[in-house]
Amino acid sequence: MNINPKLDLVLEHTLDITPEQAWRGWTTPGILTKWFCPEPWKTIEAEIDLRPGGKFKTVMQSPEGDKFPNMGCFLEVVPNKKLIWTDCLLPDFRPVAQLESGAGLHFTATIMFEPIAGGKTKYTAIAMHRDEADRKKHEDMGFHQGWSICADQLEKVMKGK
Amino acid sequence: MNINPKLDLVLEHTLDITPEQAWRGWTTPGILTKWFCPEPWKTIEAEIDLRPGGKFKTVMQSPEGDKFPNMGCFLEVVPNKKLIWTDCLLPDFRPVAQLESGAGLHFTATIMFEPIAGGKTKYTAIAMHRDEADRKKHEDMGFHQGWSICADQLEKVMKGK
Repeated sequence: MNINPKLDLVLEHTLDITPEQAWRGWTTPGILTKWFCPEPWKTIEAEIDLRPGGKFKTVMQSPEGDKFPNMGCFLEVVPNKKLIWTDCLLPDFRPVAQLESGAGLHFTATIMFEPIAGGKTKYTAIAMHRDEADRKKHEDMGFHQGWSICADQLEKVMKGK
Repeated sequence: MNINPKLDLVLEHTLDITPEQAWRGWTTPGILTKWFCPEPWKTIEAEIDLRPGGKFKTVMQSPEGDKFPNMGCFLEVVPNKKLIWTDCLLPDFRPVAQLESGAGLHFTATIMFEPIAGGKTKYTAIAMHRDEADRKKHEDMGFHQGWSICADQLEKVMKGK
């Protein structure tokens, strides 16, 4: 990974679950919906076709009931270790029609899971952007807090599973 | 492959070389430069990091000497069978800064090589676009003629190699 601090956002978090548990939480639609949005937002739908070129679709719902679909494409799938997807491409790697999405920016996300002592996981989430403006926008939207809350929710959902 | 005739362009061509030869011609920078542009345009530079996320850079030169760099990212690499890349992403899957490139449009390209009798290859090149306007623009730029001439040039360069 070539991380560029001017363009990328990075979250590191220790999860009190194993990489295998974290991976299962990330890649099982019926589990992803339980933790993928910071509450009181909800993820009400998830479709996961876990292969390079496969569909990654989620629908988020605001507390007011507004729905925000997100469509992306998996790029790299290394079970229990690494997951990369982007919303710059639709499934089958098709270029996305509009650079602007619900959130108003596009990025490529890399999620890494590394085992650490005591059955825990070093969890790293990286968002890569096209320019500094998009990085800042994503940061101002609450990237660090939001992804950190979600990591806690993932841990809570998967503990003991 | 889910081909959408409204959005995609497809070239099918029979090459009188084997899939292995065609693959080598496609993935070796010093060979790619010999056939990748319809003459009298030239490809004067090529960088190929042959892995998902790897760099695919070429520089084309017009007969007048103007240079046009193209930067892309490989998405799928199946030796002797299939090669997919896009210029919607830069190397390491980073979103591209501008949707407009030298050619003024972005696409994902899939190249497929299938063996046929007599040591020949069924060669298929697919360009996937974000909308009908981009498909038409690419078609009007001479996609079919251009890629067909290049396929002939590839065959000529690799024959007997």
